[in-house]
Amino acid sequence: MSDAVKYVLAEDRIPKAWYNIAADLPQPPPPVLHPGTGQPIGPDDLAPLFPMALIGQEVSTEREIEIPGPVRDVYRLWRPTPLYRARGLERALDTPAKIYYKYEGVSPAGSHKPNTSVAQAFYNKEEGSTRLTTETGAGQWGSALAFAGALFGLEVDVYMVRVSFEQKPYRKAIMETYGARCVASPSEETAAGRAILAKDPTSTGSLGIAISEAVEVAAQNDDTKYSLGSVLNHVLLHQTVVGLEAIEQMEMAGEYPDILVGCAGGGSNFSGLVFPFLGRKLRDGQDVRIIAAEPAACPTLTRGRYAYDFGDTGHLTPLVKMYTLGSQFVPSGIHAGGLRYHGMSPMVSHLKELGLIEARAYRQGECFAAGIRFAHAEGIVPAPEPTHAIKAVIDEALACKEEGVARTILFNLCGHGHFDMQAYTDYLAGTLVDEELAEDTLAGGFAGLPPVAAQ
Amino acid sequence: MSDAVKYVLAEDRIPKAWYNIAADLPQPPPPVLHPGTGQPIGPDDLAPLFPMALIGQEVSTEREIEIPGPVRDVYRLWRPTPLYRARGLERALDTPAKIYYKYEGVSPAGSHKPNTSVAQAFYNKEEGSTRLTTETGAGQWGSALAFAGALFGLEVDVYMVRVSFEQKPYRKAIMETYGARCVASPSEETAAGRAILAKDPTSTGSLGIAISEAVEVAAQNDDTKYSLGSVLNHVLLHQTVVGLEAIEQMEMAGEYPDILVGCAGGGSNFSGLVFPFLGRKLRDGQDVRIIAAEPAACPTLTRGRYAYDFGDTGHLTPLVKMYTLGSQFVPSGIHAGGLRYHGMSPMVSHLKELGLIEARAYRQGECFAAGIRFAHAEGIVPAPEPTHAIKAVIDEALACKEEGVARTILFNLCGHGHFDMQAYTDYLAGTLVDEELAEDTLAGGFAGLPPVAAQ
Repeated sequence: MSDAVKYVLAEDRIPKAWYNIAADLPQPPPPVLHPGTGQPIGPDDLAPLFPMALIGQEVSTEREIEIPGPVRDVYRLWRPTPLYRARGLERALDTPAKIYYKYEGVSPAGSHKPNTSVAQAFYNKEEGSTRLTTETGAGQWGSALAFAGALFGLEVDVYMVRVSFEQKPYRKAIMETYGARCVASPSEETAAGRAILAKDPTSTGSLGIAISEAVEVAAQNDDTKYSLGSVLNHVLLHQTVVGLEAIEQMEMAGEYPDILVGCAGGGSNFSGLVFPFLGRKLRDGQDVRIIAAEPAACPTLTRGRYAYDFGDTGHLTPLVKMYTLGSQFVPSGIHAGGLRYHGMSPMVSHLKELGLIEARAYRQGECFAAGIRFAHAEGIVPAPEPTHAIKAVIDEALACKEEGVARTILFNLCGHGHFDMQAYTDYLAGTLVDEELAEDTLAGGFAGLPPVAAQ
Repeated sequence: MSDAVKYVLAEDRIPKAWYNIAADLPQPPPPVLHPGTGQPIGPDDLAPLFPMALIGQEVSTEREIEIPGPVRDVYRLWRPTPLYRARGLERALDTPAKIYYKYEGVSPAGSHKPNTSVAQAFYNKEEGSTRLTTETGAGQWGSALAFAGALFGLEVDVYMVRVSFEQKPYRKAIMETYGARCVASPSEETAAGRAILAKDPTSTGSLGIAISEAVEVAAQNDDTKYSLGSVLNHVLLHQTVVGLEAIEQMEMAGEYPDILVGCAGGGSNFSGLVFPFLGRKLRDGQDVRIIAAEPAACPTLTRGRYAYDFGDTGHLTPLVKMYTLGSQFVPSGIHAGGLRYHGMSPMVSHLKELGLIEARAYRQGECFAAGIRFAHAEGIVPAPEPTHAIKAVIDEALACKEEGVARTILFNLCGHGHFDMQAYTDYLAGTLVDEELAEDTLAGGFAGLPPVAAQ
């Protein structure tokens, strides 16, 4: 029986400003470099891809950035999102730990992604863009941008990683229902896509490839901008509504987390929950352990290298310093498509380098087992991505049991699994591929790192 | 741009009692008859199928029936659900009408169905059942009962109409993820299923057939009860939490609806929204027009006959007086699987007979068009069933425009469409079958009506 406790904020508690962690860092992250010159890039270099408002947010060091009224108007459709205490899971684990989770699956797209897609659509509309291009892995991001495009009257072209395009046809359908165009990547539509297909006509694609395609189209068309669903500072910034609300909700519960857990692919879900709490730690010393959970098949933070690298496979982006497996690394077709990026947000990478966060990698089989355990105890079927967080939470809760300590754990359940039932079908049928990532695959990825002097 | 206004109730406003419309009827509905004797049945006749608490609710005439604490504890996972004013849709239609909708898609199963599955699982657990059998059409109900079964520790066997089983494999997957067993119906597991398959090995199934299978298994096993997702009084009763919350939320908005719209298959979604408002009308004379929207391919209320009929195809149920197309009627495989029942709830049928509600039938193509219009304007992709309600709402809103009258319209968006994207894919690809129901098909169905003296 579920007796989850729910903490709900009134609508006027939707945050009025995003929280910018750049204001509180002990040292700034390394600069973004121009791949040709090796010199730090300026706003003008990014102007073909992004509206100026977002470029401003990308480099801002102001602590609070006001959320425009029309963005909050759309947030109101599903925000504030609920925060729960998972008493059913606590009982199932027989743990003294107190487990809380924020739930972003109530958004119309079913995940946390609209927190930034709505903001990006707004600023693009304001500055006259008529079309957005983007990439998507599992399809959560593409759905979210299609949703925002429909509401703000923007065309949306989504390059979807081919393996997910084939695994998740219904993700394509929802993008199209919102009026977006969805293309399997690599595609014949771009030079970047054609180059990949020339080398490997059966390429299953990757986020890095899909980014190249979307960036290429945006760079070549004046009315078209590029929209990214993770990695960049402004994207992480928009997601901080999650953590800002969670801080208030934990106060309602009379608690403060000892441990924060988020799954991490490009870093946006993780940052959204974590940054506001981490800001408190940096400003006021309020301690909290922070754990990023990633897939063993794409272990950026745990086995990647902290180096300057391209954000895409086709090398159209600037160079950013991040934990990376190399821009040519193509992860196996695991179901958590949202976690299949070769790199990690530079900001999250910087925090890891500063020792402010930990990271763990899990295999997808143990993650689905954790997800099913959660569904039975709490009644919500999680998307494959947050099952990684749930696995880490269960491990921590069992450690509490062993030690006889009642720690408070908070994680973000960043999406429901209603679009991902094929993955559960495969898991339940025992047909889930669950291979370990080989050392020579890793070495091959690292061999593709660009020779930047600063490495 | 969406600027929907959301009306949220505090958690303590989850209703403490269900509303029983039997208390306020000008005359009671005709009795349920034993098919052998033609005499009214008593509680003992139903005891093999249902726990006594639910049998008591089925025949109760008390106005309020208390919601048990553990049921409200589970409701808290997603209730109270939001009510919105659809200002984006109003603008898109350029109508003076004010359009409100209650949204039940935030439940963990994605529809209104858990409102009753949780209650049914609770009472069964209380009275010692260890297993529940049920039927499901689109899969919404099966998912909801699987969800409730997981939370209360009950086995759940779901007989799923074969056409939906094949159209919606991910519905099966979510039931299995919750630990339920899902069987395509007609199946070889039951005498009822085998009889159908002997006549037609390629039968696509129907709710009537699936009910026969589920009832048969429950009747033959002491520890097993049967659970129905619609039609029966106690099911409709449990759904009234929807309308009870909506009344409070409309008060928050300073409005009272002139028109209520719900889609109607078996009648549970429709009744959940409508009954509490209709009770006010019956008690206090507070007027409201009430419209049931049904599919033209299964037009029970608009083209059916008000007659005693079996609830199932295999004739294992008692006889109920209802609008029916005949228990042998098998509707075409339209995507709104939840609306493919040959009959209509006896209580809803009675209200239609009393002239308290209207009904309209729509073809699925125009309903999907309405659903997409709603998704673009409001950002939520509806399940196929409520697109019928949306079509009726749009028609009413356009009538307001033509007449220059600002009526207030309220409907229930009873589920999201995340499991139904194949239907949208078919619609967008122009491959949706959209045939009119032929007169001779209707006549064939009526020919199968049982010869009950009272007809």
